[in-house]
Amino acid sequence: MPSRGVTVGESAETPWDADPSENLRVRPGFRLADVDTGSTPGYEGGKQRAVAALAEGAAVFDSLQEKLFANSRLGDERKILLVLQAMDTAGKGGILRHVVGAVDPQGVQITAFKKPTPEELTHDFLWRVRPHTTDAGMIGVFDRSHYEDVLIGRVRELAPAAEIERRYDAINAFERELVADNTTIIKVMLHLGADEQKKRLQDRLARPEKHWKFNPGDIDERLLLPKYHEAYQVVFDRTSTPDAPWFVIPADKKWFARLAVQQLLIHALQGMSLSWPVADFDIEHEKARLAAS
Amino acid sequence: MPSRGVTVGESAETPWDADPSENLRVRPGFRLADVDTGSTPGYEGGKQRAVAALAEGAAVFDSLQEKLFANSRLGDERKILLVLQAMDTAGKGGILRHVVGAVDPQGVQITAFKKPTPEELTHDFLWRVRPHTTDAGMIGVFDRSHYEDVLIGRVRELAPAAEIERRYDAINAFERELVADNTTIIKVMLHLGADEQKKRLQDRLARPEKHWKFNPGDIDERLLLPKYHEAYQVVFDRTSTPDAPWFVIPADKKWFARLAVQQLLIHALQGMSLSWPVADFDIEHEKARLAAS
Repeated sequence: MPSRGVTVGESAETPWDADPSENLRVRPGFRLADVDTGSTPGYEGGKQRAVAALAEGAAVFDSLQEKLFANSRLGDERKILLVLQAMDTAGKGGILRHVVGAVDPQGVQITAFKKPTPEELTHDFLWRVRPHTTDAGMIGVFDRSHYEDVLIGRVRELAPAAEIERRYDAINAFERELVADNTTIIKVMLHLGADEQKKRLQDRLARPEKHWKFNPGDIDERLLLPKYHEAYQVVFDRTSTPDAPWFVIPADKKWFARLAVQQLLIHALQGMSLSWPVADFDIEHEKARLAAS
Repeated sequence: MPSRGVTVGESAETPWDADPSENLRVRPGFRLADVDTGSTPGYEGGKQRAVAALAEGAAVFDSLQEKLFANSRLGDERKILLVLQAMDTAGKGGILRHVVGAVDPQGVQITAFKKPTPEELTHDFLWRVRPHTTDAGMIGVFDRSHYEDVLIGRVRELAPAAEIERRYDAINAFERELVADNTTIIKVMLHLGADEQKKRLQDRLARPEKHWKFNPGDIDERLLLPKYHEAYQVVFDRTSTPDAPWFVIPADKKWFARLAVQQLLIHALQGMSLSWPVADFDIEHEKARLAAS
């Protein structure tokens, strides 16, 4: 497995001087307010090098993903779930396109969680999430997630305070289930600065081919940014667990956020010590049958 | 929209001298037995040019797909469903990876239909298919499909003859529903020659990193190739309709099959006359709100 330029500690060429899977992890005492959204923690390489590293990392990620998928065909139940949370324009779409999009689409399960439907609202908040948990061998991605129910849910008081309060424990219990079901959970918040968000929304308004990405509600949400940041802080305090950690990624620089998320995925896959699965059939016997066919 | 080298009739540089969406379409009187699996009908460019054309086409396909997706955000219900059928090793996986994989994964819905589960078998054969029909704005792909129920279903007599017979009309009715629901259906059979299949299976057996793709059942199916071809012929006779046509693509040359399927998708999208959707909000008002935020 080539690791040039993308794996910490294995090559003098790596642009990282701290592993994002440690360095960007939310730990007890973490304060969102202390994060500089324009920073690139642990990374010293600049944009040009990051773009090259992303391309190199794509090949590494692709190869690891194929092994994960291959092993699932022979009964390995392991899978990865990437939970992506962010305010509008923070770059979730770019992560999906440029990081996740680098691997075989057959091995990816993306679920975009929108505003709940009336039917979904008649059920517990996890009801609509459970059918979309990741299958064995797959890279699952939640584009927004059950965390919306304690983010917009909290900020806009869409449920009684006691119900919101209950949900943190329910989320932890749900994620424990997933971990017990061989899921490696990576929870990512892309943390975008208010000024950079303004620029990106201005850009969407300025370009007709971007208008479809704009929703007037995006500005309404923007006006509530401080309240969202408070809600995220509670999320981190209550739901960043050793088995299902949160990572807060400064997102003003798209190239940094993409490279960091890619590195989190590669790190998780490398931790699985994947090898090609051993044939469960008699190879010579099958060669003979094929020759005779 | 750049069309250099990939769009028939719009550029002197196109390597096609016949549009695959016409040339490879199954019409009344079509005989599968007459197809040369090693041929490249309508294409004169050779492999090197095809690889370049595939890369150029990927950019065209990507841009069209984004427009399809964008329009769905503003209520356009159109979607595409690519049905992929083929014998083992014919190259479905390569189509998914190299053709479909070129566009934003957020706009793609792939469903791989495996051997039915016991629960699925207690229902009508379409029961498990319906939940996976394509959403508005998406490119759906069925990796195998409801056609398995009249292919392996017929060859291995997995259902009574009368039930198999009934299914062709049921499929046509089902696909009429999808078309009425704004689905452009493209049904593709990748047609691989027996000799080329033997080579590809030998390759899988020879390489440990390919063993996971091999199943002894692949040789059992291979021994039934003539019966499968008969079953495909019935499928074409009974289910290639003007609104949901079949395309038979010679598949001994992977580069040809990929380029042809890409061209079918591009042709379908171009036929939709997609443009960027017009904003349904007051742009100047939103600019002012944003500036004040």
